[in-house]
Amino acid sequence: MVENVNSAAPPMMQWATDLFPIHRSLTGEGVRETLAYIEHLLPLTVHEVSTGTKAFDWTVPKEWVIREAYVEDAAGNRVIDICNSNLHVLQYSKPFWNRVMRAELDAHLYSLPYQHNAIPYVTSYYKEQWGFCISHRQRQALPDGEYVVKIDSELKDGHITYGELVIPGQEQTEVLLSTNICHPSMANNELSGPVVVTALAQWLASEPRRHTYRILFLPETIGALTYLAVNRPEFVFQGQHRLLGREIIAGYQVVCCGDERTYSYLPSRKGNTLADRAAIKALRGANIYHGANTPDCTIYSYLDRGSDERQWCAPGIDLPVGSIMRSKYDTYPEYHTSLDDLSLISQKGLEGSLAVYKRAIEIIEANRTYKVTTLGEPQLGKRGLYPTESTKDTWAKVQDILNLLAYADGTNDLIAISDIIGVDVMSCAKIAETLREHGLLESK
Amino acid sequence: MVENVNSAAPPMMQWATDLFPIHRSLTGEGVRETLAYIEHLLPLTVHEVSTGTKAFDWTVPKEWVIREAYVEDAAGNRVIDICNSNLHVLQYSKPFWNRVMRAELDAHLYSLPYQHNAIPYVTSYYKEQWGFCISHRQRQALPDGEYVVKIDSELKDGHITYGELVIPGQEQTEVLLSTNICHPSMANNELSGPVVVTALAQWLASEPRRHTYRILFLPETIGALTYLAVNRPEFVFQGQHRLLGREIIAGYQVVCCGDERTYSYLPSRKGNTLADRAAIKALRGANIYHGANTPDCTIYSYLDRGSDERQWCAPGIDLPVGSIMRSKYDTYPEYHTSLDDLSLISQKGLEGSLAVYKRAIEIIEANRTYKVTTLGEPQLGKRGLYPTESTKDTWAKVQDILNLLAYADGTNDLIAISDIIGVDVMSCAKIAETLREHGLLESK
Amino acid sequence: MVENVNSAAPPMMQWATDLFPIHRSLTGEGVRETLAYIEHLLPLTVHEVSTGTKAFDWTVPKEWVIREAYVEDAAGNRVIDICNSNLHVLQYSKPFWNRVMRAELDAHLYSLPYQHNAIPYVTSYYKEQWGFCISHRQRQALPDGEYVVKIDSELKDGHITYGELVIPGQEQTEVLLSTNICHPSMANNELSGPVVVTALAQWLASEPRRHTYRILFLPETIGALTYLAVNRPEFVFQGQHRLLGREIIAGYQVVCCGDERTYSYLPSRKGNTLADRAAIKALRGANIYHGANTPDCTIYSYLDRGSDERQWCAPGIDLPVGSIMRSKYDTYPEYHTSLDDLSLISQKGLEGSLAVYKRAIEIIEANRTYKVTTLGEPQLGKRGLYPTESTKDTWAKVQDILNLLAYADGTNDLIAISDIIGVDVMSCAKIAETLREHGLLESK
Repeated sequence: MVENVNSAAPPMMQWATDLFPIHRSLTGEGVRETLAYIEHLLPLTVHEVSTGTKAFDWTVPKEWVIREAYVEDAAGNRVIDICNSNLHVLQYSKPFWNRVMRAELDAHLYSLPYQHNAIPYVTSYYKEQWGFCISHRQRQALPDGEYVVKIDSELKDGHITYGELVIPGQEQTEVLLSTNICHPSMANNELSGPVVVTALAQWLASEPRRHTYRILFLPETIGALTYLAVNRPEFVFQGQHRLLGREIIAGYQVVCCGDERTYSYLPSRKGNTLADRAAIKALRGANIYHGANTPDCTIYSYLDRGSDERQWCAPGIDLPVGSIMRSKYDTYPEYHTSLDDLSLISQKGLEGSLAVYKRAIEIIEANRTYKVTTLGEPQLGKRGLYPTESTKDTWAKVQDILNLLAYADGTNDLIAISDIIGVDVMSCAKIAETLREHGLLESK
Repeated sequence: MVENVNSAAPPMMQWATDLFPIHRSLTGEGVRETLAYIEHLLPLTVHEVSTGTKAFDWTVPKEWVIREAYVEDAAGNRVIDICNSNLHVLQYSKPFWNRVMRAELDAHLYSLPYQHNAIPYVTSYYKEQWGFCISHRQRQALPDGEYVVKIDSELKDGHITYGELVIPGQEQTEVLLSTNICHPSMANNELSGPVVVTALAQWLASEPRRHTYRILFLPETIGALTYLAVNRPEFVFQGQHRLLGREIIAGYQVVCCGDERTYSYLPSRKGNTLADRAAIKALRGANIYHGANTPDCTIYSYLDRGSDERQWCAPGIDLPVGSIMRSKYDTYPEYHTSLDDLSLISQKGLEGSLAVYKRAIEIIEANRTYKVTTLGEPQLGKRGLYPTESTKDTWAKVQDILNLLAYADGTNDLIAISDIIGVDVMSCAKIAETLREHGLLESK
Repeated sequence: MVENVNSAAPPMMQWATDLFPIHRSLTGEGVRETLAYIEHLLPLTVHEVSTGTKAFDWTVPKEWVIREAYVEDAAGNRVIDICNSNLHVLQYSKPFWNRVMRAELDAHLYSLPYQHNAIPYVTSYYKEQWGFCISHRQRQALPDGEYVVKIDSELKDGHITYGELVIPGQEQTEVLLSTNICHPSMANNELSGPVVVTALAQWLASEPRRHTYRILFLPETIGALTYLAVNRPEFVFQGQHRLLGREIIAGYQVVCCGDERTYSYLPSRKGNTLADRAAIKALRGANIYHGANTPDCTIYSYLDRGSDERQWCAPGIDLPVGSIMRSKYDTYPEYHTSLDDLSLISQKGLEGSLAVYKRAIEIIEANRTYKVTTLGEPQLGKRGLYPTESTKDTWAKVQDILNLLAYADGTNDLIAISDIIGVDVMSCAKIAETLREHGLLESK
């Protein structure tokens, strides 16, 4: 599935390339521009929530405007300039325009001693300061002397902006897909998430679905909290896995899914939710191998979390949200630096993630709890489901059917039956559908 | 226990030898003749249920009469004849009498390419056709030319026939023992089951028992379903392990228990029922070893099932029925062929199975949940249960008693206590009975 | 913690040395003298319960007085004399004064063939007889001839005597600490228990505690049973872990805790009670190592029990009582012989046990079940709990806080959270207290 790149797959790599240069941050024009691009691909609703709005323990911050940010040396050369990389400015820097000596400048520089060539990605959303992020090599080479620093930024009352798309399904159950749009020019973390979610949403909308899909493009942390807080009237949590109006049966925080390295999974806080079970089946069931000695998938612990599952899974919210990823944030060397650029991800890498997410969703759509309608084994033969001659060899052929019937007792869903009888869950779903058509199973 | 063949053991091998030639099938005279033989050994009640009777999803089939079945070559030699082996005819063959060419005949032949000398056992209960089963060696040697085929059979409205024996016990609890009487001349599968059950029933009837024993000699599948369906008014299932009138606390489907190879156990669908726990104790507790490198017992999964536990354990019926076997059906090379003859089984093999079944039943009879009657440890010394001098060495001698008392808290039955304290369950039962006599335990 | 002997630690070794020569038995002056010594260290209440009082299945025995016990040879030499070791007399010997021949004397001698030099400790509380305990070497050397045996003892109506101290706490929950005072001159089993409990009680009384501590100095078995029986009106057990007035949340039977060999733990009958969980944390969390290849602690099974947990944990009483020990009774060669003398224990060994018990109690005092007060993650930054700049490196620093918050959902206590997040339980308690002060956690 992964190896056969679908020629009809959406041009996710192109979307990522188009979105890469936009100067996104937690709030502001970069986020709006990004959502506007996605609106051409999906019928998004864009919401704006005012600065100062309470979101549980948090408050929607001021909106950040960044027009110019550079450092000039005494000769007037712009030695640092966000025109070259929008990682160069400390995110949420306050405005600053002055001459500074090399030593004073240095106190406002961020670099990585052990990654000489990487510009780090640094933010200061909640403390007003100014700064520049540069490669350590450049920092060490900056000569003494006077510099002109200019940061033409503004922190003003404005909004936080996010996109939402609800694709209605046939039943009163909902699946949540969430991704982040607050990162500036980085590719795996995070343009891979928005482009895979966009492709997933197009696919979900292409035919009728059993469940409703709620798709969110959010600034990280405060975006998720704001979403939960402002939707609270109709979106209050009633214990585990439930919203007031709908049951969220599963969800995924889609991040870091663009490179071609190993797959990985970060489970929900409670673990063993439908999201977790479907994801593991999707990852293990597919032909996802990278060579004889490479495991097909790294399974992390919820202790390794670091994206918006921190909010979705928090106590009292308790949504069943995990993350299917390629190289997980915080585990690959290019993470949160300028090295996480477009060369790190690929159409093939994105399509692999898309395929696994599709498969997880197909499993969620197909998963049902069935109960056999007969007492005793049904007579398969009269329905053409059993070979008419019984020999040593023919018995094996109906074993899967009989095993599924044996465990379809109204307590095991198909994922559980798949585990018990050792048959792929989608094959179980096909068998179950055939048996349902013959009146031998009923869905509970 | 296995090695010491009991000289007083019933002549099971003789019974098997007497029953072997009878031409049994799902219905008909062979079944009646078999039950008539067993009636000389046990006070069976023989039941007949009419063709066409509904049994849940199934219908009692027509009764099959087979008078003659042979193939003559052009020279008038009977090259195939059920007089030589009653496996030669496809079970439930329709009548046929005609000349056929070698090629046409071949379309009606069944043989096993990889077992040259074996006549396979093939049935076609639910599709009307005709055929012969022969060794592959013979099939390959049959010359071209014309043959006379005669099958003088009849499919007529009649009955399905089964035997039942209820041995009443002292309490309102019941144990089910079921075996099959529908196989023609094969020994391990299946004459071993009926003869071991017959011996078990004689032993059960020989002294008062705590539980009632319901013993069934049934044609496989349709026999079990029919039994359940026709007895439904007083035999309806009320959830797990319960009949309307009585609680079935355990049961065994007795099959494939005549050879001297390893023991095996097939657990009930739910597993860990009393039937399963007693069987495992019986198999592991006995001195059942076959040499240094042979495991004493193979434990199968319910996925490996294949006899009437398929009906007893089906969802909604949910009886706690497992199978203690020697060489399990479908796992030994002679299975369902003419090679499964009397040479495959032995009196010693049958007695081993009988001994394990007796031990399982003794465990079920002895198993109780006790509660200690004192607060704090009882004073064993004043009852003569404790050495009067306390030294380093004497403590160990009363450990088993004290350990049993420590866990006899009204929640653990003796099998559970045996597992906890590491003492054989029948030894636990002896200790418990002594303590009960001293007023220190009460049965719940 | 073990290696750094606290210079302010109480002089437990001195107490043990003072108490060693006293001739203790199940009842009588030795017990009273021992309790009188402890009364100088703790405000004990001493209780006496009359001979003949019923204690569940037992009866308080007569009080034993022992004035003289010796054996003289024909030359008038006292070859055995309790003046030399008070183990020499069979505990609870009846009075005897007569001439006996060597052979008759031998029937009343107790010795250990495989421990030539050890005088065994033997009791006969519940059968009236007389005897002497001597080393096997001495027994073999005793020449033929006539001896004068004198045991000036008395079994009279009297009392059983025990000490009790209740240190009130702030909440309606109680911790039980129990130890034995019935053993004559043996050091690890049993003077280590009383002196460690005495030191623990002094420490507990030195500052306010959350829980009440009930501290008992009891003769073994009958002492515990008597305590339970006579306190029944206000001390009746209401199922698991509950007394009528108070909830016993944890308890320890303090025995065999004076030598410097490995630590060990004997869990409560139910296992996994708060007593067990705190003890394991205390033993595993401390720097308790004895070299590279020595495990820090041996964990026994309740099947290995042998002290008053037999009564505290009995069905229907069901108190959550375990034992933190050094060399467990019945496992070290000197056990229950004259070799278990003061040389076997040390101030360092006693202080190690004291330290582990203190740590277990600190864990019990600190352990609470918290619930986070916010929906979604709280904003740590505005409370100074989060670094204001987010880089690759700073995230790790707040992981422990965030992990604790993630699992503080009102179902996990701190011990459980410690296991989940891999942070020492006392560190968890410190984090939780900080978060509670900031209003982010509430105790349930």
